[in-house]
Amino acid sequence: MTLPDVAVTEVADPLAEAAPTMELLLRELDRRWPREAERLHQISRYALLPAGKLLRPLLLMESAEAVGGGGPAVVPAALSVEYLHVGSLVHDDVIDGDTMRRGRPSVAARYGTTDAIVTGDALMLGVFGVLTDGAEDAGPLTGDSAGPPPDRVLGAVRVFARAGVDLCRGQAMEGELRGDLGCGLDRYLTMIALKTGALFRAACRGGAILGGGSPAQQHALTSYAEHLGLAFQMHDDLLPYTSDSRTAGKSALSDIAAARPTFPVLLCHAMAGAPARARLEAALGGALPAADALGTVHELLETTGALTAARDRATAQADRAKSCLERLPRSRATAVLAAVADLSVSRDR
Amino acid sequence: MTLPDVAVTEVADPLAEAAPTMELLLRELDRRWPREAERLHQISRYALLPAGKLLRPLLLMESAEAVGGGGPAVVPAALSVEYLHVGSLVHDDVIDGDTMRRGRPSVAARYGTTDAIVTGDALMLGVFGVLTDGAEDAGPLTGDSAGPPPDRVLGAVRVFARAGVDLCRGQAMEGELRGDLGCGLDRYLTMIALKTGALFRAACRGGAILGGGSPAQQHALTSYAEHLGLAFQMHDDLLPYTSDSRTAGKSALSDIAAARPTFPVLLCHAMAGAPARARLEAALGGALPAADALGTVHELLETTGALTAARDRATAQADRAKSCLERLPRSRATAVLAAVADLSVSRDR
Repeated sequence: MTLPDVAVTEVADPLAEAAPTMELLLRELDRRWPREAERLHQISRYALLPAGKLLRPLLLMESAEAVGGGGPAVVPAALSVEYLHVGSLVHDDVIDGDTMRRGRPSVAARYGTTDAIVTGDALMLGVFGVLTDGAEDAGPLTGDSAGPPPDRVLGAVRVFARAGVDLCRGQAMEGELRGDLGCGLDRYLTMIALKTGALFRAACRGGAILGGGSPAQQHALTSYAEHLGLAFQMHDDLLPYTSDSRTAGKSALSDIAAARPTFPVLLCHAMAGAPARARLEAALGGALPAADALGTVHELLETTGALTAARDRATAQADRAKSCLERLPRSRATAVLAAVADLSVSRDR
Repeated sequence: MTLPDVAVTEVADPLAEAAPTMELLLRELDRRWPREAERLHQISRYALLPAGKLLRPLLLMESAEAVGGGGPAVVPAALSVEYLHVGSLVHDDVIDGDTMRRGRPSVAARYGTTDAIVTGDALMLGVFGVLTDGAEDAGPLTGDSAGPPPDRVLGAVRVFARAGVDLCRGQAMEGELRGDLGCGLDRYLTMIALKTGALFRAACRGGAILGGGSPAQQHALTSYAEHLGLAFQMHDDLLPYTSDSRTAGKSALSDIAAARPTFPVLLCHAMAGAPARARLEAALGGALPAADALGTVHELLETTGALTAARDRATAQADRAKSCLERLPRSRATAVLAAVADLSVSRDR
């Protein structure tokens, strides 16, 4: 179980109920990526293991279960959403020049740019092999050779491909917004719906389709995922200002250095009067040393009320995510999904 | 028709018969990538248009037709193999630092590394959207709303995903072989079967599956593609030594500078006696200025007979490709495929 223990014990019991699912995912991930000689395989293994939180695979498993069709048959699809996520992170680290990921050297730092690009490609393309080989691969695991029916698998392929392209659109848009404090909250929200929301949507909608959910159930889980994605990213943007940066694993300095417009900063820009806005722009314009800039930004986020407003909006999105679950039959799975929504705005990293 | 005119008139009439297919592909490619505001879309359009030879889409179309199931219904799948190809070229140019592609600035040179990585990702991921949306999208074009049946589309997704991963394996392996003249022909042939062969195989096998070919027909077209891929890459490696580099669009100097072991060079290394081998290693070891190295390599390729041997082996692969076609009913499509095999070892660029 790689979800942080503190969250599991503090937030709710339902997440503890996800433990068997997490163990299944971890066991299967390890089985599929043995230590092998081929370089590309080795690097892929390095990128995937030790695994991260496996949040997206968990969402897929629980979404499938929430509509009555989860279990081992959807494990390959669940892992494939992780490949898509990790493949995009590997490329992200090339793009941003990030040398650390999950507390150890990024693929780019450890193996170089060339292998990082190629490995990211292989992970992303492999998604669709794993999705469509599901029927065969799930066999030995389940003792049941039948994976999801072909029309459901095709539906999942379509959803994953769309999510992958949306993720790229979000990344391209993020590049355009860089340094643009005046981009406005709307464009920022569109960007994070694409960049962060896409894979949450793929996981939940894909799970609902593979699990045989009705159109209404698919819709409910898609909406859940969209609100969850917003809540998750809004909270992520808040982390540097609400917990010490070592715990957050990500520093406000890095956001400032990269001139990344983040949720609280954009809210602050929108809420502030002219003088505060001018100070914010100066702080983020590279005029001050980064540490001083951070102090100024933090102070402005507090005094304008932006920090509180951002926190409230993130919580509201998590609440809306949970309310979407009311359209589904109450089950262990929906309780886990609700707990994930709570966790998305309470985690400290 | 973007295949070089000289090849069409010199080689055979059958290729001229591919003209309507090529026109269909070009029209559809242009329709699907209108000029739009979104940056990622613009860059994708720049990468795709003006189109290259569209050789892989043509192979898919003709393979489908060869088994009795071609036409507009498989156009989306045909275009998707081009997206996979172009996406990988966009990343290749980032990796190799190439600033030119098809006679104009590469995506990386024109838009920068970040957008090139993201655009390549979007093209590769988009493949699976186009493949699975085929049924809907082919509708207006064909006046027939039914695309290929779901089981065939799933088969094609599986083949494309596998091909995509193989392509990456080939690229990673190419990196490993760089500078290693002693890597041996076997490893080189494995590498090009992955790197170049993968997409030819995806195109032909994918076409055979989507067109409803029998397992024997699928196998025949897969074998055709594998031999074609070898012939194509062997000839590609020969181009710098058999035509002037401007026509070839690729220079021997670049292969030498990148310490890329190529087919004639590896053959030469295997065939040469100790003194010639020592001279070859010195020339490719960076000891000489590139132009002098090229002169020496060229001379050694001639005197050891490696150039002739390489040409013979490429032709033999093209012949084997053609012989695979005998297992299919004779048709316009098989004539085009045979002509492509001839072209693969007679083109001068």
